[in-house]
Amino acid sequence: MKKQGNTIFFKNEPRITSFAAICGSKEKVGILGEYADITLEDDMYEESTFEKAECKMLTNAIALAIKKGGYEDRDIDALFSGDLLNQIISASFAARDYDFPFMGMYSACSTMSESILMGAAMVNAGYCNRVVAATGSHFASAERQYRFPLEQGTTRPPQSQWTVTGAGGCIIAAEDKGIKVVSGTMGKVVDYGVTDVNNMGAAMAPAASATLIQHFVDTNTSPEDYDLILTGDLGALGSRILKDLTWEKGFDISSNHVDCGEIVYKVIEREFQGGSGAGCSATVLNSYILSKMNAGLYRRILFAATGALLSTVSSGQGESIPCISHAVQLEV
Amino acid sequence: MKKQGNTIFFKNEPRITSFAAICGSKEKVGILGEYADITLEDDMYEESTFEKAECKMLTNAIALAIKKGGYEDRDIDALFSGDLLNQIISASFAARDYDFPFMGMYSACSTMSESILMGAAMVNAGYCNRVVAATGSHFASAERQYRFPLEQGTTRPPQSQWTVTGAGGCIIAAEDKGIKVVSGTMGKVVDYGVTDVNNMGAAMAPAASATLIQHFVDTNTSPEDYDLILTGDLGALGSRILKDLTWEKGFDISSNHVDCGEIVYKVIEREFQGGSGAGCSATVLNSYILSKMNAGLYRRILFAATGALLSTVSSGQGESIPCISHAVQLEV
Repeated sequence: MKKQGNTIFFKNEPRITSFAAICGSKEKVGILGEYADITLEDDMYEESTFEKAECKMLTNAIALAIKKGGYEDRDIDALFSGDLLNQIISASFAARDYDFPFMGMYSACSTMSESILMGAAMVNAGYCNRVVAATGSHFASAERQYRFPLEQGTTRPPQSQWTVTGAGGCIIAAEDKGIKVVSGTMGKVVDYGVTDVNNMGAAMAPAASATLIQHFVDTNTSPEDYDLILTGDLGALGSRILKDLTWEKGFDISSNHVDCGEIVYKVIEREFQGGSGAGCSATVLNSYILSKMNAGLYRRILFAATGALLSTVSSGQGESIPCISHAVQLEV
Repeated sequence: MKKQGNTIFFKNEPRITSFAAICGSKEKVGILGEYADITLEDDMYEESTFEKAECKMLTNAIALAIKKGGYEDRDIDALFSGDLLNQIISASFAARDYDFPFMGMYSACSTMSESILMGAAMVNAGYCNRVVAATGSHFASAERQYRFPLEQGTTRPPQSQWTVTGAGGCIIAAEDKGIKVVSGTMGKVVDYGVTDVNNMGAAMAPAASATLIQHFVDTNTSPEDYDLILTGDLGALGSRILKDLTWEKGFDISSNHVDCGEIVYKVIEREFQGGSGAGCSATVLNSYILSKMNAGLYRRILFAATGALLSTVSSGQGESIPCISHAVQLEV
């Protein structure tokens, strides 16, 4: 059986053989300080603009993932990547530096799981031997694109999250050692009518809940079958909503759910609801989580990053925020 | 052999079983007037904003493709789509209306071929039975996002193209009748240093040339093996550059190359270099071209849409325009 419901089963077990993450100066105060490969002193990363710094982080995260796996660029068959900037310029400009094909992905902050899902699908089918899945974000470029320029000094409301400055990527390969990508659940767009662009957690929680439940049903598993159910950037408030919504449908994830946005910053109170952005799950997964999996602490995790599919134009035109969550099941 | 170079071979021959296109009032003066399923009298399409009109065209093109194939929504396993608007809101909001999963794609005006490639890969591998690949664009929403609001009445330079108002989509299915998707060549990012955002054809031609040549080499074919080599929206100037670049590398496509942007408008002089935008190849392919294939006029075509991966931010920061072209080979 290759597919059940919306879940694809990767029978050939493509492996995550290498991973890397780069994070900003604020992020290195937390767990990423210990686990990320590169931590920046200055979030400009020696570039002249925030966008170029974001692109450089992503470019270097890809390079590091390739290098740490003992690969050369010529060993890579394709890059699956996207980011939060208009026209995914970080990914496109990062791809320009490499001589392998680039498949542009977009699902906002769910891009990490979408890229792993599509990359694993390509490797499992035998189309590719090794692909890179990667994404990232930058606090300053996201703020000025989605909200206000930092120079304006706008007050943040208590329900807001902090876009992670960082990038992460991994190699998915047709090899027999590494972390297995067992299955992937493709997400549907879910919209509960939330219109507050400062409350991403509340907007995205229903999408995460829908995908997690779909995954449990499709794979005939239950929350306790996983050492960890990892969401991407719901933050503290969004995570509470997720647990409630999922519990209402008969699945209790309260004992093993963790959100990357909740654990990325050390002093979470100062960042209100925690971290967000495509770089949030990209950095936490591709450093802390996969390291712990390699060390045997987690044997089976369900990674469901969540994306809010809004733009400033859609919000300005009075639209609510459609959201999506793609999930992948990882095992050692 | 599942892959050679950057080309994936779809041995199970997924089929395009249905297709549909919707075009605007200007576009219906040309070939689309005869071949598109719906032609608009008013490009606002009874909506209050250009963006909502664009989304409605895409939503309805998807619905029409499903309906024309005799399918129901529940027969569809996933939607592969993207568009030119920031955060691909047309595709995301279109996907909100459907109860099947959505995989967000982005490669600017190459999104049609990227979506067909990824969709066919999923069907060929047995992950999905039927997927929709679709995209679209709208002249007015593209102008105000990428260049100037229409109200400003900015003069267009002679090298410019006209973004097509339209959307198109097709069903790719694991069935044994319909147009075969034989192979797909994944594109690399190519940047020749063009910085003129009004000269997309010149920026994108090198990417198209690179992908076409890669395809010929990978598949051991030559231009004359195809009844038609169809690019997406290079326009008149870009097509001339493409022919020259490809000829320089030893491949003469001059006798069977056609560009969707060159044929979409009847009075091409008024639109300067012709049509552009994701909707350009989406409408021309999913009406005129596929109809001609079904009628036996073309038996084997190579469809290589091209995308310019710029944003207003990247251009404003002095960056050149990286471009990409993904290609699919179609046969009856």
